[in-house]
Amino acid sequence: MNDVFHALAHETRRAMLARLSAGDRTVGELAEPFSMSLEAASKHIRVLERTGLVRRTVDGRRHVCRLNPAPLASAYSWLRFYERFWTVRLDALEELFAANSKKKGRKK
Amino acid sequence: MNDVFHALAHETRRAMLARLSAGDRTVGELAEPFSMSLEAASKHIRVLERTGLVRRTVDGRRHVCRLNPAPLASAYSWLRFYERFWTVRLDALEELFAANSKKKGRKK
Repeated sequence: MNDVFHALAHETRRAMLARLSAGDRTVGELAEPFSMSLEAASKHIRVLERTGLVRRTVDGRRHVCRLNPAPLASAYSWLRFYERFWTVRLDALEELFAANSKKKGRKK
Repeated sequence: MNDVFHALAHETRRAMLARLSAGDRTVGELAEPFSMSLEAASKHIRVLERTGLVRRTVDGRRHVCRLNPAPLASAYSWLRFYERFWTVRLDALEELFAANSKKKGRKK
């Protein structure tokens, strides 16, 4: 799980995953929107590959990348445990607002 | 968001957050279960503080740490976008199993 969170800790890699969520891309296509060298982009792709977030198939000179979402599921379920903590706070805020508007309503 | 994912990319820091989810802890209490120096543990706590995941209040010599879950919400919602991808695969697997058991049922 360290590797998954590490892979996600860079906006370029998150943007690459977002692009792959719309469909498979060659390494060149994946690198294209980023103002960086192909080598720098390839490094990011390799980090994603090592974590298993991206699968690469080689077809002659075409290297096609595909999103593999499975490793994200473990990160997601780790985070889901904490959902109760931020929703509890939101609930408390909502109650506060509700109590406040009730008070205001009475004053009218 | 880079910082949040970076903070989560170490098992010690994730374990510290898990401990804080059960209640506030002093720095000493938070460091105690880990086989590392207090300095090493303090470094991890500082990473969590910088990301806003931990708030520290100082009461004389007691430094009390509290979980602040808010930064986790943005990481969670980033990941939630991808949920459809792994659930689609699970659905496909389920259908495959269902079709398979149907076939087996017919053979009996």
